[in-house]
Amino acid sequence: MARSREQTRARLLAAAHEVFGEVGLGAASVEEICERAGFTRGAFYSNFESKDELFLALITQLASEKLDEVEGRVRVLDAGDPVQLVRQIADLSLAERMEPQLLSEIRTQALRDETLAAAFLAWRETMRVRVEAIISAVTVAHGIRLRMPLPDAAQLLLDVSEECSVRSSLEGKSKRQANAAMQSRLEQLVQLLVDDR
Amino acid sequence: MARSREQTRARLLAAAHEVFGEVGLGAASVEEICERAGFTRGAFYSNFESKDELFLALITQLASEKLDEVEGRVRVLDAGDPVQLVRQIADLSLAERMEPQLLSEIRTQALRDETLAAAFLAWRETMRVRVEAIISAVTVAHGIRLRMPLPDAAQLLLDVSEECSVRSSLEGKSKRQANAAMQSRLEQLVQLLVDDR
Repeated sequence: MARSREQTRARLLAAAHEVFGEVGLGAASVEEICERAGFTRGAFYSNFESKDELFLALITQLASEKLDEVEGRVRVLDAGDPVQLVRQIADLSLAERMEPQLLSEIRTQALRDETLAAAFLAWRETMRVRVEAIISAVTVAHGIRLRMPLPDAAQLLLDVSEECSVRSSLEGKSKRQANAAMQSRLEQLVQLLVDDR
Repeated sequence: MARSREQTRARLLAAAHEVFGEVGLGAASVEEICERAGFTRGAFYSNFESKDELFLALITQLASEKLDEVEGRVRVLDAGDPVQLVRQIADLSLAERMEPQLLSEIRTQALRDETLAAAFLAWRETMRVRVEAIISAVTVAHGIRLRMPLPDAAQLLLDVSEECSVRSSLEGKSKRQANAAMQSRLEQLVQLLVDDR
């Protein structure tokens, strides 16, 4: 039962991702998502309260996959200076799951909808806390001191990453180019953040 | 003639701002904007090629007013350390003309529309160049050295400002609270950027 429920959720999320890619957040309907996934509206509403909740679950899933990958890399880091560490953590495959369009649409809608805003902020805070834990692990393991409190450094890295991925997308960059842009931006930021005195 | 053309544009921009506030970018129609401004569609299309062009002109106007104000303050800065300088430049009235909702909607639409993306990127580049000139003037006048090339520092300040204003808006902060958040974020960033060795 729990297994089948998980599969239903996974299929609804995959269908939502597809429909979003084709028509955007505003035009993606619960009907179309259910039809794509092969479920009734009943199955949908026993898993998600609303379309907004589904899309929040989708960005949570996408972001978690990315952070899982980052955490995996952090566990096997070779010693090196901060820039070399960033290079090992943020390599090519990372940008591939970035969803600037999806995030941007949810953010825009959240700016007009208090309930969605609260859920979106809670999601961002969860991401920030995970990033903070990653930075904390790396700085402790490699004896790095930061010039800014950890929570603020995590927020700064997230803010800059988001702006950078949106810019690359607007510029029509390929995934490889987008990743190179992200990497060079993060390296530059890390050099600013690290206290090398 | 030039005078009246300018007035027509100004009235169309003011009407667009109003209509946007009520219904958002997607639902704001050229018809409604013309009606609000008291002009025909002919008058509209002799001034703007499209609704997108009108909204780009609107964010250009809003951002220019803000940067004009910043430049005015930079010209009369008292001596001080970098944080004191930021405090003088970014005081209370600044956040009042921030339009996170409008910017977020245009950005989101640009992510799905190449022509708008090019125009939006060009607009952002214009802003970045103006911010770079402001930073350059302040650093030269007050003997401040940065730890990052000027163009990158300007981009970083803009990225962080945008994320910060969106976050304050999502959090339902008052203008005063939003400005305090922006100010403390910018002070922190400037301390990171300044080379005090």
